[in-house]
Amino acid sequence: VSRIFAGLFARGEVAARTSDQAFVQAMLDAEVALASALARNGLAPVDAVEQLVTVADAASYDLTELGRGSAVAATPVPALLRMLRERLGACAAAEYVHRGATSQDIIDTASMLVARRALASVLDDLGTAAEHCAELADTHRLRLQPGRTLLQQASPVTVGLKAANWLSGLDAAHAGLLEIWQHELAVQLGGAVGTLAALGERGLAVMADMARELELAPPQLPWHTVRIRPARLACALGMTLGVMGKVARDVILLAQSEVAELSEHAEPGSGGSSAIPHKRNPVDAVAVVACATRAPGLVATMLGSMAQEHERGAGGWQAEWEPQLELLRLAGSAAASLRAALARLEVHPDKLERNLAGTGGLVMSESVTALLAQSLGRERARELVEIASQTAIDQGRTLREALLALDAPGARIDPDALEEALTPERHLGITGVLIDRALAAHRELARGG
Amino acid sequence: VSRIFAGLFARGEVAARTSDQAFVQAMLDAEVALASALARNGLAPVDAVEQLVTVADAASYDLTELGRGSAVAATPVPALLRMLRERLGACAAAEYVHRGATSQDIIDTASMLVARRALASVLDDLGTAAEHCAELADTHRLRLQPGRTLLQQASPVTVGLKAANWLSGLDAAHAGLLEIWQHELAVQLGGAVGTLAALGERGLAVMADMARELELAPPQLPWHTVRIRPARLACALGMTLGVMGKVARDVILLAQSEVAELSEHAEPGSGGSSAIPHKRNPVDAVAVVACATRAPGLVATMLGSMAQEHERGAGGWQAEWEPQLELLRLAGSAAASLRAALARLEVHPDKLERNLAGTGGLVMSESVTALLAQSLGRERARELVEIASQTAIDQGRTLREALLALDAPGARIDPDALEEALTPERHLGITGVLIDRALAAHRELARGG
Amino acid sequence: VSRIFAGLFARGEVAARTSDQAFVQAMLDAEVALASALARNGLAPVDAVEQLVTVADAASYDLTELGRGSAVAATPVPALLRMLRERLGACAAAEYVHRGATSQDIIDTASMLVARRALASVLDDLGTAAEHCAELADTHRLRLQPGRTLLQQASPVTVGLKAANWLSGLDAAHAGLLEIWQHELAVQLGGAVGTLAALGERGLAVMADMARELELAPPQLPWHTVRIRPARLACALGMTLGVMGKVARDVILLAQSEVAELSEHAEPGSGGSSAIPHKRNPVDAVAVVACATRAPGLVATMLGSMAQEHERGAGGWQAEWEPQLELLRLAGSAAASLRAALARLEVHPDKLERNLAGTGGLVMSESVTALLAQSLGRERARELVEIASQTAIDQGRTLREALLALDAPGARIDPDALEEALTPERHLGITGVLIDRALAAHRELARGG
Amino acid sequence: VSRIFAGLFARGEVAARTSDQAFVQAMLDAEVALASALARNGLAPVDAVEQLVTVADAASYDLTELGRGSAVAATPVPALLRMLRERLGACAAAEYVHRGATSQDIIDTASMLVARRALASVLDDLGTAAEHCAELADTHRLRLQPGRTLLQQASPVTVGLKAANWLSGLDAAHAGLLEIWQHELAVQLGGAVGTLAALGERGLAVMADMARELELAPPQLPWHTVRIRPARLACALGMTLGVMGKVARDVILLAQSEVAELSEHAEPGSGGSSAIPHKRNPVDAVAVVACATRAPGLVATMLGSMAQEHERGAGGWQAEWEPQLELLRLAGSAAASLRAALARLEVHPDKLERNLAGTGGLVMSESVTALLAQSLGRERARELVEIASQTAIDQGRTLREALLALDAPGARIDPDALEEALTPERHLGITGVLIDRALAAHRELARGG
Repeated sequence: VSRIFAGLFARGEVAARTSDQAFVQAMLDAEVALASALARNGLAPVDAVEQLVTVADAASYDLTELGRGSAVAATPVPALLRMLRERLGACAAAEYVHRGATSQDIIDTASMLVARRALASVLDDLGTAAEHCAELADTHRLRLQPGRTLLQQASPVTVGLKAANWLSGLDAAHAGLLEIWQHELAVQLGGAVGTLAALGERGLAVMADMARELELAPPQLPWHTVRIRPARLACALGMTLGVMGKVARDVILLAQSEVAELSEHAEPGSGGSSAIPHKRNPVDAVAVVACATRAPGLVATMLGSMAQEHERGAGGWQAEWEPQLELLRLAGSAAASLRAALARLEVHPDKLERNLAGTGGLVMSESVTALLAQSLGRERARELVEIASQTAIDQGRTLREALLALDAPGARIDPDALEEALTPERHLGITGVLIDRALAAHRELARGG
Repeated sequence: VSRIFAGLFARGEVAARTSDQAFVQAMLDAEVALASALARNGLAPVDAVEQLVTVADAASYDLTELGRGSAVAATPVPALLRMLRERLGACAAAEYVHRGATSQDIIDTASMLVARRALASVLDDLGTAAEHCAELADTHRLRLQPGRTLLQQASPVTVGLKAANWLSGLDAAHAGLLEIWQHELAVQLGGAVGTLAALGERGLAVMADMARELELAPPQLPWHTVRIRPARLACALGMTLGVMGKVARDVILLAQSEVAELSEHAEPGSGGSSAIPHKRNPVDAVAVVACATRAPGLVATMLGSMAQEHERGAGGWQAEWEPQLELLRLAGSAAASLRAALARLEVHPDKLERNLAGTGGLVMSESVTALLAQSLGRERARELVEIASQTAIDQGRTLREALLALDAPGARIDPDALEEALTPERHLGITGVLIDRALAAHRELARGG
Repeated sequence: VSRIFAGLFARGEVAARTSDQAFVQAMLDAEVALASALARNGLAPVDAVEQLVTVADAASYDLTELGRGSAVAATPVPALLRMLRERLGACAAAEYVHRGATSQDIIDTASMLVARRALASVLDDLGTAAEHCAELADTHRLRLQPGRTLLQQASPVTVGLKAANWLSGLDAAHAGLLEIWQHELAVQLGGAVGTLAALGERGLAVMADMARELELAPPQLPWHTVRIRPARLACALGMTLGVMGKVARDVILLAQSEVAELSEHAEPGSGGSSAIPHKRNPVDAVAVVACATRAPGLVATMLGSMAQEHERGAGGWQAEWEPQLELLRLAGSAAASLRAALARLEVHPDKLERNLAGTGGLVMSESVTALLAQSLGRERARELVEIASQTAIDQGRTLREALLALDAPGARIDPDALEEALTPERHLGITGVLIDRALAAHRELARGG
Repeated sequence: VSRIFAGLFARGEVAARTSDQAFVQAMLDAEVALASALARNGLAPVDAVEQLVTVADAASYDLTELGRGSAVAATPVPALLRMLRERLGACAAAEYVHRGATSQDIIDTASMLVARRALASVLDDLGTAAEHCAELADTHRLRLQPGRTLLQQASPVTVGLKAANWLSGLDAAHAGLLEIWQHELAVQLGGAVGTLAALGERGLAVMADMARELELAPPQLPWHTVRIRPARLACALGMTLGVMGKVARDVILLAQSEVAELSEHAEPGSGGSSAIPHKRNPVDAVAVVACATRAPGLVATMLGSMAQEHERGAGGWQAEWEPQLELLRLAGSAAASLRAALARLEVHPDKLERNLAGTGGLVMSESVTALLAQSLGRERARELVEIASQTAIDQGRTLREALLALDAPGARIDPDALEEALTPERHLGITGVLIDRALAAHRELARGG
């Protein structure tokens, strides 16, 4: 990840939790947990664990040296072990560290640990973003807004309903990540070829103890070349980014100069352009969309890496390492940016009213059609409303005027009924119910999470 | 999908279930279910439902005509409705069909229905493929095989363990699809902008009844532009294809002329080449890999379509239609091909033995190192085994010979202990336990599914 | 491809040129060209070619039967040859057809032939779309329009400049496809393993003659597992779809109810919604975006298939077949839709003026800042304009009013100079020059193409 | 990019050339070139350029500070300008720096500059890798090797021909990148909305001078939202990675324990496993495959970002930044790894002979069929060879024995002719010619490049 673009792509708590140092720490934690599990099963002295702990601080390791080592062995683990053993010197731990394991065990376990730690902050920011949506949904439940299909005004909705839809998406993504966080992140321990041969009869017990130590799930089988776990994580992150992208794109569209129903409240100095002084760009929403745009390709990489050969992949496995970290970082950054965007979102009632009125009643054509259909039938009603709509557009009149001026058999319309049909508030269907359902589901998730 | 490549990409039951006609049938089923739900809620006469049913057979609709209609409205629904109403003529149903709904409701619901029907056959073929793996795992649990990392022989495994790993992957994919099949496939009904405005107070009840009618889940909220559901389906299919690709690639690698541990039993005339008469190509496994290779890009398309604008996406939604069908078809075709490949898989014990012996004992170096480490320490043991391995390779001798000829301090090795360390059967760790775990989990899934 | 969605994804001439029948015809054409090249090199009797021609009409082949055959051999070629030879019966041609070739030679050559034929219609529609842009650029070169960055009004441009930018993109894509069409589409002929062993010394000559016959390039080497050619085609199509997506998205955004600067002229009955009578959806632009959204995943599939093993890929090659056809079809459909959208694009001068005026002069802030900077320096000028902009926004005043009311040292502004700085026409830079450059380049391409 | 995996993914010269510091340097170089072009056109004093040069060393900028700035403006440019102006203090340059430009101009130009510098080292390593292939092709032109289709032995080729095919792929990729390097990398200068309004009549001249200064191409039009240039670069890199992946995968397959025709010569300590002492993993080839596996998703991201809105993309543009850098880094790393793998590639003649003989003559079935077809016709010949092949496989005999034992009408075979047909050297077709063509084309490219 580039430091200079960190404000968009390495934002929030997640950045530190997916850093090189965090990954090395996770590898060291995996070695410590393995040693501890060995000790618990009588395969290593307890002393060895304590010795190992004293040298297991990633801050003291030279990351560049590790990188050089990764060129020689196609993984950084042998270099890490060499550095570890140098530090251990004549300690017994030098003999026991990594016993029974292979490089993949350490890297896969570390990847899962990093995921566990990073997801916690993704979930946190995502939850707060959802909370902001819940507030919007509740506060603006009756605030009318043009509903838009194919970006054309169609029928009225409310700001609250739009926020409730966002909320339902963010909550679904949250629940998906939570499920992963709670059940899918597992230790990997298989030894050279997945038989745990070096641990004799104790393999399964060591794996279980190591998992417990790290608060990871113990897998049914080692999963060295069955890559459903990393793929599931990637997919859940990809979907989360997809939902956040939807919310952010809506914000950007609603913040357009000509729409202006919402805006990111401008802190002094924020959102400016290097050429244009007056601009108030929706920068946080833009950052979310930028992160989201990058997700599908990375998920494709994770899925495209799944066909790993025999007992260790020759390229596919290695290809997973950075994309998984990037997906975590992008999801976390997007969540932090979305949270920020929503926290300072301003709703502009005057613009909402202006836009809703802007089509001269055309936004009510569905409800007017329903009214006319009662007496004329659906087909004829639709035809008349189309004619009136066209007249209204051509002559710059309102739909009401055009309808009342219709000169066609059976086209007499009761003005009171028409008035009602043209009233957006009367054409909101089950908007309130839907908002309540979204809020209730959100509260349930918040309790359970 | 191309008919001429159907043998690879439109194979098995899934082809018919994802055809154009199947999709039109699903759209018609959605309209019927909606009418039925309207009737149940007093919003349409019961007669209308019966009339509708009589004209709801997709076989009588002109698909090309529908296609032409989709150019005008960017969906085929208005054309379908026109054709439907023509058939209904003066029937009351003509007035009530599609009431309250919008095109997206019908297409999204039809997509989910098609998914439900197609998944049933994907699950069936996938389950049978898994069953074949379970048999392999059980039958060959002790049949020795070289374990390979980075495609190099590393340490011994058994054919049964490899099959158990495949099984665990296929079962995990199966469970993921089953979860989708049972809980994620939902009706979509929102009306023009997701408020169900045209149905007054009855919107929620109509949605629930329509869902029940179609055996789909009733969603918390309409999901017209919150696209987690199609994305989840796509991801689950992508992961399933990824796992199948892993199994098939292993089969292809094991069927190589120089490895030849497995082969697809050749039916007369199958697997041949247009240039080479003697070839026995693993054609079914190749078809699986071909399907799997196409999945990541399609999943990326589904994820890349998620940021849909406001209350109806302008491009993103439409972009989902065919890729979702393709993913279903590819997953089903791959499952059918994998099932066929595994059903006629032959294991060649002589080649397994020859290959395991082929490295002159090097495949046992891990276990020999463990033996030496007991007296010499890990570092020194590893060093000696590396020297002996190099000598064995250079001089074309076995590892045993090279080890016994080592002339180094402390390098005296007990021949009996060495013999044991060189015996693959003694170096299988918890292979049997892992196979049992995979089989037990499989039986549980089979019961539950 | 689905027939029912053909209006979006199988539109225009390209649909027939990428059909199953078109592909079979191309395979038959390849066999005929090979036979003809064999005859020219004395390796087959001339009679055989004539006999072959009589049975080389794809319309008479059963595509479903071919599909069944593709399950057995993992390609449809053996089945096609069987059907061909049945038709030839005792003719000499039965003995000579396919001589020296392997299945891959026929499929790869047919893919390239189909690409050649399909690209011709893609280029045609793309060229016409570009022509429409050229007309827009010329006709509306001085028609003011708000320029927008991050979807916020920034500084003025003209409709003509926007169209010139579209034009430059479409022309660049066109030139890229033309380059492929002219130079990259090559015959493939390598025989079983790329040595053309069955043709003795005449291999190269046969390849060259076959290429000439088909108007394809003769490659330096057979390219059975060096897949740069299909990848280049895919990339060029992907980029073309990307550029078209940009144009179409701009159209959709400019057609929004609240912007309304452009619209797709509504033919009666087109663009309607199944729920909303008054809608005039930009359906053709939506179809373009839908096609474009599907391209990146398909290109990724083509690139992800490149690592094909040894002398024939086991999965990667087969995975190319349908995605390449789909990319051709999507590019052609998008070009047809874009051409249609641009042909009936209406420019709405009143809305352009309204929108440009809508920010009360803020859209001129860059030019005002430049004016003030002459006396105050850049930093101070920017500061004052920011203050005035904020005041204007807060108090609902114009930027002019806010600037003239500024009460700050050195903030006295000459009203005439301010007037000029606030005049959009004076702040268009080299707009005219850029339009001319785009038009000149377009005419050059049109001549050369 | 992660430092700890640098040995696989940030290898060779390219790493430094795509670093954060390299990018900041390129941004500073862009500002200097712009100032210089302004001065040349009388729009800035020459002094300003000199002042600017003194503060334009990226090493003195705080990258983390820049990153923080990128959160506020969604680009790091405003923060960079602030830091630049602080350093300039009261110098005149502070007033002129960035004049006429917008953030996108600087970032896009810097991206192109970084690409230019990074591509030089990609081309260098790629060219050396190709050179190694040329040597292999020449040295081993007659060294027989089994040709393999679908990973099954098919007909003989030579090591030299395989290398020549690799060479043709690497050269085609090289030519593609060179074309980009020479013609496609262009300066971007458009100002706020692409009109260069702030530069009056001199916009075009400034753009041309800025381009000359940086050795980049001057574009026809600014390309702020027409993203063909970055897409072309991405595609060319993606294809280059695809070709390298093919070569590396072949190496890995040929280095399998059971094939062993090639190996990466093991430096002491390289290629080892943390669990298995004897392993000699093809680590460099694995690194290449890992890089290549990551490319398609990143190219998809670049293509998926192309539909950028109006005059500046709201998410799509920002999404390009890191993936473009990653593609450069991955292509360069893969080229460095491939170069290393090929430089130490060992060919094992004994294993080649053993493998070719391993099928008991079946690898010659195509040539034997051709022999028999002379008297029996193609169909009957093929049938007999299939029977004999099956017999040979079933009874563990050679194809010769099986053929001579055939007891069928017309199956009498002349032993001498059979001997010749079974001689691989006589069945190489135009292998030598193809090798010569690849070498000649390579020498031409090497001269021209």
